Amino acid sequence: MKNLTFGIIGTGALGGYYGGLLAKSGKDVHFLLKSDYQWVKEHGLRVDSVNGNFTLLNIPVYQHTSEMPKCDVVLVCLKTTSESLLPALLNPIVQKGTTIVFIQNGLENEKMASALFPDCHLVAGLGFICSRKVGPGHIEHLDYGKLTLAMYDSKNQMALDRIQSAFESSDIQVELSENLELARWKKLVWNIPYNGLSVVLNATTKEMMEDEQTKNLIYDIMLEVIGAANACGCRIEEKFADKMLASTMQMKPYAPSMKLDYDFNRPMEIHAIYERPIMAALKASFKMHKTEVVMNQLHFLQNVKKKRLT
Amino acid sequence: MKNLTFGIIGTGALGGYYGGLLAKSGKDVHFLLKSDYQWVKEHGLRVDSVNGNFTLLNIPVYQHTSEMPKCDVVLVCLKTTSESLLPALLNPIVQKGTTIVFIQNGLENEKMASALFPDCHLVAGLGFICSRKVGPGHIEHLDYGKLTLAMYDSKNQMALDRIQSAFESSDIQVELSENLELARWKKLVWNIPYNGLSVVLNATTKEMMEDEQTKNLIYDIMLEVIGAANACGCRIEEKFADKMLASTMQMKPYAPSMKLDYDFNRPMEIHAIYERPIMAALKASFKMHKTEVVMNQLHFLQNVKKKRLT
Repeated sequence: MKNLTFGIIGTGALGGYYGGLLAKSGKDVHFLLKSDYQWVKEHGLRVDSVNGNFTLLNIPVYQHTSEMPKCDVVLVCLKTTSESLLPALLNPIVQKGTTIVFIQNGLENEKMASALFPDCHLVAGLGFICSRKVGPGHIEHLDYGKLTLAMYDSKNQMALDRIQSAFESSDIQVELSENLELARWKKLVWNIPYNGLSVVLNATTKEMMEDEQTKNLIYDIMLEVIGAANACGCRIEEKFADKMLASTMQMKPYAPSMKLDYDFNRPMEIHAIYERPIMAALKASFKMHKTEVVMNQLHFLQNVKKKRLT
Repeated sequence: MKNLTFGIIGTGALGGYYGGLLAKSGKDVHFLLKSDYQWVKEHGLRVDSVNGNFTLLNIPVYQHTSEMPKCDVVLVCLKTTSESLLPALLNPIVQKGTTIVFIQNGLENEKMASALFPDCHLVAGLGFICSRKVGPGHIEHLDYGKLTLAMYDSKNQMALDRIQSAFESSDIQVELSENLELARWKKLVWNIPYNGLSVVLNATTKEMMEDEQTKNLIYDIMLEVIGAANACGCRIEEKFADKMLASTMQMKPYAPSMKLDYDFNRPMEIHAIYERPIMAALKASFKMHKTEVVMNQLHFLQNVKKKRLT
């Protein structure tokens, strides 16, 4: 089997970590960077991980995908707030048979690519990971790291097997899910309560979990997301909420990605994490009352911030 | 008809304003004060009102109700967060036939007094008013001022007529409501969205109304409160929400009382304005999903503040 060529679109908390592990284990990995390009070119990519720190020097970095080689596997690690850039970014590096892995939050992220690149294999990758970018080309990995993978359609199991073994040989734990929508909804069970409330309440996961009322609210919102998933035909048991609560209790104090986006004046993923699930549930006649409150509050806070900054 | 003796329990934004107007028009009014006692004794009570400023010098002020005369009418203008103090405060100044007017937010405020003082007439007074205390013995009245009055039970219409005429001859606009619970629910249609969201979003009414999404959220919450009221047998039409929205659009930028309580580190009226309505609705099998989110967020913010201050 020939060596796979990997392209990392977005070298941040996720792309820097997963791409970094692939490169560390000797894979042929090409990184797209924006603001950190010059820094990483000169100083390399640094990953401080609970599993061991490492720095990768002289790795192939790019400012434009037009300069990159065609890739066998592309990891899309951009925030969904930049997804309108994707068609132009992907076009130069994909070809017939390229596997595109969307390591992103939210729902329906693969829809657009499916129409534009019908000859590619589309995979959802859900990172269950606590990581963040703490400086230019500098990723901090605090906890977890498992990647759940699911095919967008079932027509190419071989592509999935191939990247699974590439990830696993790079110390990335992989779990396969039969059902992409189900996998995305499961991730939303965590993301919808914690991401939004951490912004609205200006709190870490730990601060929220230590407050009995807020823990109850989080549990209620989780049950609402599960109700929405079930209405959309993705069967999740209620005890999955208990499992998520328990595993968050075990986590180190953590500011979810949306909290960091808000604090650092970046747009929040309100559309992918809140609006799309609310609309999908509504189509299935399920009203996400509590989620709607949080979504609207996030919109307000984002607008206030935008006004203050302009 | 003999002159009525009025007792004002809590000389703040409401008690200072309504009691001040009664005293200004020559009524026999006795004010209970706490921290502002010495100041008002020396400098008087100052009311800066959109309808004209006035200061009342040498008015009868008290630190304890045990020093006050028996009253024909008592205006309870304490926050509901202090309602556990009421039995001891009221006992020395009420007698058979005393009318106790509860000018407070929330639901079921008269319940306790009804059991303790069965010989008194209980009246709910709902202040539709923008006013606040801006300094010791200094009330600022920004807008509105109508007092809606409703009997706790229908057995004494005369007591209500008597205080209505006393208020009206003191330039206080009065509206009578047939149904106390209905009047209280109507006030909650405004209080539940605006009070809580102004704290959670750190915003005035104007800032919230200028944001289209937040206006929609407020409208949705109003409809939820109306749904709860209807479930509890208090018929409110949906168009009442439109009316409340429109009248808030006309208001000057306003920080609701709960926002001021939060900002000045006083306990918020979460129990009266949120918990009691939620419980009442639940008894009638109506779940106030959106209101629950706001209530839990308020609890969290209050607890965080408490921790920070101790």
